[in-house]
Amino acid sequence: MNTVSHVYKILEVVGSSTLSSDDAIRNAIATASVSVKNLNWYEVVEHRGHINDGEIGHFQVTVRIGFRLDDKE
Amino acid sequence: MNTVSHVYKILEVVGSSTLSSDDAIRNAIATASVSVKNLNWYEVVEHRGHINDGEIGHFQVTVRIGFRLDDKE
Amino acid sequence: MNTVSHVYKILEVVGSSTLSSDDAIRNAIATASVSVKNLNWYEVVEHRGHINDGEIGHFQVTVRIGFRLDDKE
Amino acid sequence: MNTVSHVYKILEVVGSSTLSSDDAIRNAIATASVSVKNLNWYEVVEHRGHINDGEIGHFQVTVRIGFRLDDKE
Amino acid sequence: MNTVSHVYKILEVVGSSTLSSDDAIRNAIATASVSVKNLNWYEVVEHRGHINDGEIGHFQVTVRIGFRLDDKE
Amino acid sequence: MNTVSHVYKILEVVGSSTLSSDDAIRNAIATASVSVKNLNWYEVVEHRGHINDGEIGHFQVTVRIGFRLDDKE
Amino acid sequence: MNTVSHVYKILEVVGSSTLSSDDAIRNAIATASVSVKNLNWYEVVEHRGHINDGEIGHFQVTVRIGFRLDDKE
Amino acid sequence: MNTVSHVYKILEVVGSSTLSSDDAIRNAIATASVSVKNLNWYEVVEHRGHINDGEIGHFQVTVRIGFRLDDKE
Amino acid sequence: MNTVSHVYKILEVVGSSTLSSDDAIRNAIATASVSVKNLNWYEVVEHRGHINDGEIGHFQVTVRIGFRLDDKE
Amino acid sequence: MNTVSHVYKILEVVGSSTLSSDDAIRNAIATASVSVKNLNWYEVVEHRGHINDGEIGHFQVTVRIGFRLDDKE
Amino acid sequence: MNTVSHVYKILEVVGSSTLSSDDAIRNAIATASVSVKNLNWYEVVEHRGHINDGEIGHFQVTVRIGFRLDDKE
Amino acid sequence: MNTVSHVYKILEVVGSSTLSSDDAIRNAIATASVSVKNLNWYEVVEHRGHINDGEIGHFQVTVRIGFRLDDKE
Repeated sequence: MNTVSHVYKILEVVGSSTLSSDDAIRNAIATASVSVKNLNWYEVVEHRGHINDGEIGHFQVTVRIGFRLDDKE
Repeated sequence: MNTVSHVYKILEVVGSSTLSSDDAIRNAIATASVSVKNLNWYEVVEHRGHINDGEIGHFQVTVRIGFRLDDKE
Repeated sequence: MNTVSHVYKILEVVGSSTLSSDDAIRNAIATASVSVKNLNWYEVVEHRGHINDGEIGHFQVTVRIGFRLDDKE
Repeated sequence: MNTVSHVYKILEVVGSSTLSSDDAIRNAIATASVSVKNLNWYEVVEHRGHINDGEIGHFQVTVRIGFRLDDKE
Repeated sequence: MNTVSHVYKILEVVGSSTLSSDDAIRNAIATASVSVKNLNWYEVVEHRGHINDGEIGHFQVTVRIGFRLDDKE
Repeated sequence: MNTVSHVYKILEVVGSSTLSSDDAIRNAIATASVSVKNLNWYEVVEHRGHINDGEIGHFQVTVRIGFRLDDKE
Repeated sequence: MNTVSHVYKILEVVGSSTLSSDDAIRNAIATASVSVKNLNWYEVVEHRGHINDGEIGHFQVTVRIGFRLDDKE
Repeated sequence: MNTVSHVYKILEVVGSSTLSSDDAIRNAIATASVSVKNLNWYEVVEHRGHINDGEIGHFQVTVRIGFRLDDKE
Repeated sequence: MNTVSHVYKILEVVGSSTLSSDDAIRNAIATASVSVKNLNWYEVVEHRGHINDGEIGHFQVTVRIGFRLDDKE
Repeated sequence: MNTVSHVYKILEVVGSSTLSSDDAIRNAIATASVSVKNLNWYEVVEHRGHINDGEIGHFQVTVRIGFRLDDKE
Repeated sequence: MNTVSHVYKILEVVGSSTLSSDDAIRNAIATASVSVKNLNWYEVVEHRGHINDGEIGHFQVTVRIGFRLDDKE
Repeated sequence: MNTVSHVYKILEVVGSSTLSSDDAIRNAIATASVSVKNLNWYEVVEHRGHINDGEIGHFQVTVRIGFRLDDKE
C-alpha cells in the first residue's frame, strides 16, 4: 500500500470544437496542459453548444481537471 | 455595450441516431430548425440509448434548445 | 435493428385531481392528448398539492410528456 | 373546496435586462404574456449574465412560467 | 395495449476506451452482455477520464444498464 | 442499544403495472423477493410511464431496494 | 392585485400508511393540522417504505408542508 | 481560536413582496425575527412568484434561516 | 406486520466541534435531545467548517433529525 | 461560422454587499476584473447572507465567472 | 500509456458501525470483499444513522464500490 | 453592522490520507495554506477513496476552500 498522501487541485475549463464533443474536451485539456503540469483526470460537468443556421457551430464542454500538486508547491 | 435585451424561449427535444451521441444532437437540432427560426444554443440534459442484441441500437440524447423570439412575435 | 431515428419533443404539464396523485397524472395526459398526437411517455418531476381545512384539496403533479414528431413536421 | 381540477402548461423563457435580475424576469413574463393568456406563476431556474469590460452587460434569468389551459383548448 | 407488466433490473458499469466516449459506452455494454441477457437500455451517469502527458489516456463512462428479468427468474 | 452492525446491499429494480404507481412498486418488490431474502426497505428514485392512445399504458417506477446480508454471506 | 404580502413557514413531516402512498401523505397532513392552523400546500420530497416478508409493510412519504403565519404571530 | 462549539437550528420560511425579490427575503427575515432571537444567516432555496394580468403580482422567495441556540435552551 | 402508522417530524440542526466531524453530529443530536423526545434517526446534509490560521477551527455538520410524534401531540 | 475554438477558464468568487443581491454580484465581478482580463459571463450558484439584529447585514452571492484564455497563455 | 481498457462494475452497500462514520465505510468494504475480488474504489453517497436515547446508536454510510471485472468474467 | 463588503475566492482541492476522512480534509487545507493566505472556510463536496486488498488505502475528500481577497489584490 502506498503510504504517500497526495493533494490535488481542480481547475474548471470550457473547451470548444467545431468537430465533436470529445474534441472539445481534448482542446480544454491541451490548453490547460500548457501552463499546468501533472494533469491527472477530468470530469465532464456540462455539455452545451452554439447553433448557427440550424447546425451546431461549436461544441462547448465544461470539464473539471485534477492535477497533482508538486512536493515543492 | 449592447442595450437591446433579447428574450429567448427554450424547447426540449430528444434526438436519436444509430451512429453517435453527437449525431443524435445534430438530428434533434435539424428537426427543430425546420419549424423554428433563430436557434441559438443547446444544452445536453440526458444521454440514454436502446440496446439490441447486446449492442447500442440508438443513441438518444435530450437537449434543451434556446431560440431568440422575433420582435414581432 | 430499427434504422429509423425518431425525434421526440417534450412538453411539461401540471395535472390536478381531487382523487389521487395517479389521477392527476391521467388528467395531465388526457388534456395534452386533445391537441397533440403520438404521446409516448411521461416522467413525474414534481408532486405538490393544495391543503384545505387540514385535508388535501388537490393533488398537483407535474409531468414531462414526450411525443414523436411526425415525418412531415 | 374547489372541485374543478385545472391543468397547467409550463413554458421556459430566458429574459434579459441591463438594469437588474428582477427586471430580466419582468421582461421574460411581459414577452410571454403577448401570445399566451392566463399566466399564473413563475419559478427561477437559472441566473446568468454577460460581462462587458469588467461590468455586467446583461442579467439573463431563465424562468419556468405556468399558465392555465382554457376549457376549450 | 400490452397487459404484461415486465420487471427490469439495473446494473451500473464503468466502460473505458482510448478512442472515444461513445466507444467507452460500447465496451461497458459489450462486457455486461457476456453474462446478462435481455439488455434493454442504458443511461449515462458520469463521464470522466484519465490524462497522461497532457492528453486523454482513457475515456471512462459510467452507465446504468437496464435488463428485463426472465419469467422464470 | 443494539451492538450488532449489519451490512445491507442495495438493488435497483423497475416495476411496472397497468393499475397504479403503488402497484408498480409492489411488483418490483415481489419479483426481487423471489431470489433475495431479507428485503428491508425501498426508496422511489424515478416514476415514468408509457402512454398508449392518449392514456397511461404502464406505470413504471424505479426503486432502490435494501436487503440485509446474512452472516454467512 | 392583492397588495398584502403573506409570510409562510415550512414544516417537514414523514407520514406512513399500510394502504397507499397517497394515504401516507394524508396522515402526515392530518397530524400536522392538529397543532398548526392555516396549512396551505405540501410538496413530496421522498417516498420510501419498509418491506416485511417480501411485501410493503408501510409506505413512508416525506412532505414539506407550508402554512401561513397569522398577523399576530 | 474559539473553543466554544455553538449549535444552530434552521427554519424554512417563504417571504413575499410586491416590490422586489430582495424585499421578499427581508420580509421573511423580519417575520422570523419577531419570535426567534439570534438569527445568524439565510440561504435562498427557491425563487417563485405569482403573475397577475401578465405582470409579477408577488415575488415569493423561500429562505432557510439559521439561528444560534441559547446556552439555556 | 406492525399495523400502527407513525408520523415523524424532521428538524434541521447544525452541530459544531473542534474535534471531529462525527463529534459535530453528536453535539447537534445532544442539543436537540434536551428539548425533543423520541429522536429516531439523522441524515447528514452538509459538512462545512471554519479555518483559523490554516487549520480547521470548527467542523460544522448540518443534520436532519427525525423524531416520532407522540400520540397526544 | 466562426472557425476559431476558444477555451475559457472558470473562477468561483463570493461577492458581498449591504445594498442588494445584484450589487453583490457586481462587487464579485469588479474584484475579479482587477486581475483577470476578458471576463465573459457569470452564473449564480448560491445566494446567502448574514443577519444582524434581525435584518440583512450582507448579501453574499457566489458566482462562477468565465473568462477567455488569451492565445499566448 | 496503458492501452488496455478495463471495465468496472459498481455495487451499492450500506455499512454500519457503533464507533464512527469511517468505520461504517470499512465494514461495508470488508463485507463486500468477502465475495468480490478486485475492489478498486468507493464513493460515499449517503450518511445516516439511528439515534437511541438521544445518542448515536449506529452510523450508517451508503457507499458505491467499484471493482474491476476479470478478463474471464 | 460591518459596512465593509469582502470578496472571497473559492479553491477546489482533493486531500488524501491513510488515517481518516477528517485527516484528508486537514491535508487539503494544510497544502492550500502554504501558498494562499486568509483561508476562511471549507465545504466537503465529495468523499471517495482507493481500496487495496479489500481495505481502504486512502481516504480522498474534495473540499471547496474559501479565502478572503486582500485589499491590494
